[in-house]
Amino acid sequence: QNAALRRGVLVMRHGERVDQVFGKSWLQQCLTADGKYYRADLNFPSALPKRKDSMKQFEYDPPLSCCGIFQSRLIGEALLDQEVVVTCVYSSPALRCVQTAQHVLQGLKLNQKVKIRVEPGLFEWTKWETSKVIPNFLTVAELAEASYSIDTSYSGNFPLSSLVPSESYEDYLSRSSAGPGSAAAPSLLLFAFSAVPGVILIVGHGSSLASFTWPLIGLPNRNSSDFAQMVRKV
Amino acid sequence: QNAALRRGVLVMRHGERVDQVFGKSWLQQCLTADGKYYRADLNFPSALPKRKDSMKQFEYDPPLSCCGIFQSRLIGEALLDQEVVVTCVYSSPALRCVQTAQHVLQGLKLNQKVKIRVEPGLFEWTKWETSKVIPNFLTVAELAEASYSIDTSYSGNFPLSSLVPSESYEDYLSRSSAGPGSAAAPSLLLFAFSAVPGVILIVGHGSSLASFTWPLIGLPNRNSSDFAQMVRKV
Repeated sequence: QNAALRRGVLVMRHGERVDQVFGKSWLQQCLTADGKYYRADLNFPSALPKRKDSMKQFEYDPPLSCCGIFQSRLIGEALLDQEVVVTCVYSSPALRCVQTAQHVLQGLKLNQKVKIRVEPGLFEWTKWETSKVIPNFLTVAELAEASYSIDTSYSGNFPLSSLVPSESYEDYLSRSSAGPGSAAAPSLLLFAFSAVPGVILIVGHGSSLASFTWPLIGLPNRNSSDFAQMVRKV
Repeated sequence: QNAALRRGVLVMRHGERVDQVFGKSWLQQCLTADGKYYRADLNFPSALPKRKDSMKQFEYDPPLSCCGIFQSRLIGEALLDQEVVVTCVYSSPALRCVQTAQHVLQGLKLNQKVKIRVEPGLFEWTKWETSKVIPNFLTVAELAEASYSIDTSYSGNFPLSSLVPSESYEDYLSRSSAGPGSAAAPSLLLFAFSAVPGVILIVGHGSSLASFTWPLIGLPNRNSSDFAQMVRKV
């Protein structure tokens, strides 16, 4: 089939995150005494985006490592090699996901053309986050300010205010479903009704690889322990 | 001390090479039936430079892997962070070294300013190369054609025609020495007599880390088995 006419939905996880490499104390390792970021190791990113609230908030919303940026770019290059035409990108509001989306688009040479839609409903199952509150994600304006290619007109299908900490498995599945008010709904509708061919890219978390693909292909949901076991293998 | 006034000689080894990852048969893995290069794995580079002789010659002069390019760029970024001012770059004629030099310069944001001097005398101890002949290195013209930042006016202090296969340890040390007609001589002279401050970067091989640093700091040479043991640890 002509690659340009191919249609599909790609669901991917973010790249390597700094705390995965440097542990929970990563932020302490790369802040000076007066609270300025410096690159304490080459696998830390060269800079952090500016944020209005405190630097401390990065602890609950860590960026990609330098290697994670490299991985994301390579994935974009691989998609370009395969002539995959990405027409639309949805990302979790987590910084690591927005960054992954950005660098995949750079690898695809589409960062000037395709804007990232930040969809709060794509965030990780909050029960699995170490933080007991929903992180203060960078706002769409802050992300755009930091040169991320963001669709500032997209407001999200599942509102950020509806994300609750330690949500139940059922609540998580419901916002991952294809139903109305869910995170997957707009991409599914786009896929089903858009006359434009191309691929919709969804950048989420380990759990997204299961929770966002099952409803899309009509598979029944599994119980939460099977789900956890499956995601652990990601 | 003011970083811009610092003077020194940095000797480094090339980054990860494709055959280190994919083995001796790497070239077979990424050539189509009609002999065209394709990126069979994301850790292969996105393209190979054009060469007038056969593609087969890359087997004896392998390029960097994609990860090797990433490593080299990171080293350049680290030098930039440390405000190291590189004023002059010498590279072994091996493609992996020229590529390392190029990506270090890119990380340093100096690729438009500083040109790479290809010095045949910086090549690996030929006894340690698997090939029983001296590889057909890409010419300076071919490297420039492939967009490497090359000083095409530099002709080399140790001529390529003087490189012999399976050379003795003494011959190798002699071309690595600080004496006249050696590979290190021009950089040493530059270092000693130049009024311009800054750092001279030498990109070579595992063995270079010993053979080019010992004479520069006045250490006596060791016997060949001590030398081999030391380089094995690199």
